[in-house]
Amino acid sequence: MYLKHLILRNFRNHKETDFHFSALVNLIYGNNGQGKTSILEAIYFLSTGRSFRTHNLSDLIREGQQYFYLEAHFIKDELQQKLQVYYDETTKRIQYNHTNYPKLTSIIGILPSVLSHPNDLALIIGTPHERRRFLDIYLSQADPLYLHHLNRYYKAMKQRNHALRAQEMQTLPAWEQIMFPSALYLIDKRTELSSYLLDPATEWLSLLSNKKDLLDIHYQSSLAKRDPLKWEKNRHKDMLLKATSLGPHRDDLLFLLSGKQAKNFSSEGQKRSLIYALKLAQWNWMQQKIGYSPLLCLDDFGMQLDPKRQENLISCFSRFKQVFICSANVIKGKFADTTRSFWIEQGAIS
Amino acid sequence: MYLKHLILRNFRNHKETDFHFSALVNLIYGNNGQGKTSILEAIYFLSTGRSFRTHNLSDLIREGQQYFYLEAHFIKDELQQKLQVYYDETTKRIQYNHTNYPKLTSIIGILPSVLSHPNDLALIIGTPHERRRFLDIYLSQADPLYLHHLNRYYKAMKQRNHALRAQEMQTLPAWEQIMFPSALYLIDKRTELSSYLLDPATEWLSLLSNKKDLLDIHYQSSLAKRDPLKWEKNRHKDMLLKATSLGPHRDDLLFLLSGKQAKNFSSEGQKRSLIYALKLAQWNWMQQKIGYSPLLCLDDFGMQLDPKRQENLISCFSRFKQVFICSANVIKGKFADTTRSFWIEQGAIS
Repeated sequence: MYLKHLILRNFRNHKETDFHFSALVNLIYGNNGQGKTSILEAIYFLSTGRSFRTHNLSDLIREGQQYFYLEAHFIKDELQQKLQVYYDETTKRIQYNHTNYPKLTSIIGILPSVLSHPNDLALIIGTPHERRRFLDIYLSQADPLYLHHLNRYYKAMKQRNHALRAQEMQTLPAWEQIMFPSALYLIDKRTELSSYLLDPATEWLSLLSNKKDLLDIHYQSSLAKRDPLKWEKNRHKDMLLKATSLGPHRDDLLFLLSGKQAKNFSSEGQKRSLIYALKLAQWNWMQQKIGYSPLLCLDDFGMQLDPKRQENLISCFSRFKQVFICSANVIKGKFADTTRSFWIEQGAIS
Repeated sequence: MYLKHLILRNFRNHKETDFHFSALVNLIYGNNGQGKTSILEAIYFLSTGRSFRTHNLSDLIREGQQYFYLEAHFIKDELQQKLQVYYDETTKRIQYNHTNYPKLTSIIGILPSVLSHPNDLALIIGTPHERRRFLDIYLSQADPLYLHHLNRYYKAMKQRNHALRAQEMQTLPAWEQIMFPSALYLIDKRTELSSYLLDPATEWLSLLSNKKDLLDIHYQSSLAKRDPLKWEKNRHKDMLLKATSLGPHRDDLLFLLSGKQAKNFSSEGQKRSLIYALKLAQWNWMQQKIGYSPLLCLDDFGMQLDPKRQENLISCFSRFKQVFICSANVIKGKFADTTRSFWIEQGAIS
């Protein structure tokens, strides 16, 4: 897959910007606040139907304007294809080739991409919730059954919690029976994904750090022993807590660097390298699932990496087919001549 | 004040490192994971009695060792002074000049500093709780009465919430009466600090952004009308929510850039510039309170700033007396010749 041509109209601070991208590396650079990230945001939006910066679509409309419009021309399955999205306060229009689509969520899967953004750091330093969400998002995309079990589990658990608060002891077993098979499914798939990611992520991290940082990933489950009676044994405690204290909704993903928890012991640059390694591993996983190369988008390229690690990261871009990189620093010289570059100023290529 | 000499022994990955600092700018650079941030962590530890990376003091001890030791020699009030901290799993020894101190918290105020760290971004993109905490920490340090009212307010509110949950309507007025004067004190002081910070932060941000980013800061209070009956009017609603829905514990600090919320509308580089401007303004505030220049420590210097903004930031260092800067990139050439620099490799100056 190759995103050839992208048009942004009234999108963020872009009035009307046309990009003719290279099939390999595209470098988008410029000063702070000129509209670099908005270009990745447009690609992400066409890829997922949402923004990674706002939940409110109106935020995406250029100030003083009534609508935004995105148009992407790309080659997929050796065919020239087109995706268009128009939005104003009252109307959403989504067209894929010549077919109208009813909802933004329907475009997921058309233009797959992997994004790395400064906020990804939350994956390491944030709450377990954020790490579970990382796993859930990717598993749900690839496996409809996963989404089914995720919903089933959370719904039954909500009911169990309700019963705990109302002290309705007699209804607990019914909810636990629904929760159990779904819990096992979630734990199995999450463990599977974690160990799938371990190999490529270890390899990427070793490459970035010149073999200095040794990675380990553990999916830590409170139901590790797969004991169906765990909830029963915990009923009294849960009654006091008014909440279900065990289950995949409390699990966590542990990242260890050279045997120590990255969250507490790694430097900012090591954490950032780990994030890159995880994102590249996610790209590997996605490529295997869909059978072709998803777009790779890196915002604030190389931030916090020392020059050697930046160079190492650049050296592996050729393996990712089409790459989009944003940077506030002129790093053009570090890239091969095949890189196409765009200097962005006030929402336009200049 | 001027930190002349700092000794780290078994602190993080530093076995025994001695720093003889310049009274002006000190540049600490080196690759990722070599122990740069640990030097700022040591300074911060001597300044506040705690780390900004961990709550667990044992994390600070070098792997395989039993203790850590920090020793600082500095000039304050034109006198040569000394601060020492020793910690092992069973003992804490704190000595200021030749006096033993009982607790780590007793050293607050001896070696005042302002730190800017990548995680500060939470101040803009994080929850209101983090912004309230930012205000509370600085107000508590400068004003013992503030800490008194903060405790008084939260204790009474906890009791009111308890009464709400227990449906004990009759005790609510008593708690509200305690909460009210303390709430007003907190709101007044927070509003005062917010507007105090606005002027210097606006100036710093204008300097960083070449007058492009216009700042506004608002302290947003749910008790803005100072109505003593607000809680009474809300009792019924609060009973349903089982929580106090109004008061300084729900207030927020709003950062606007050119009239738009920085959280949602600013680029990463603009957010980062805003953080620097706030930290520098905090330095101004602290300097005014204590009557001399606190140390200024900047971790991951210039991250996400474009070259022009980096240059602008460097140009104002001379105003801050002693500055400590960490960077994973060789930015030495950008600094004046008066800068002393330390290349850190595997927890040592090399």
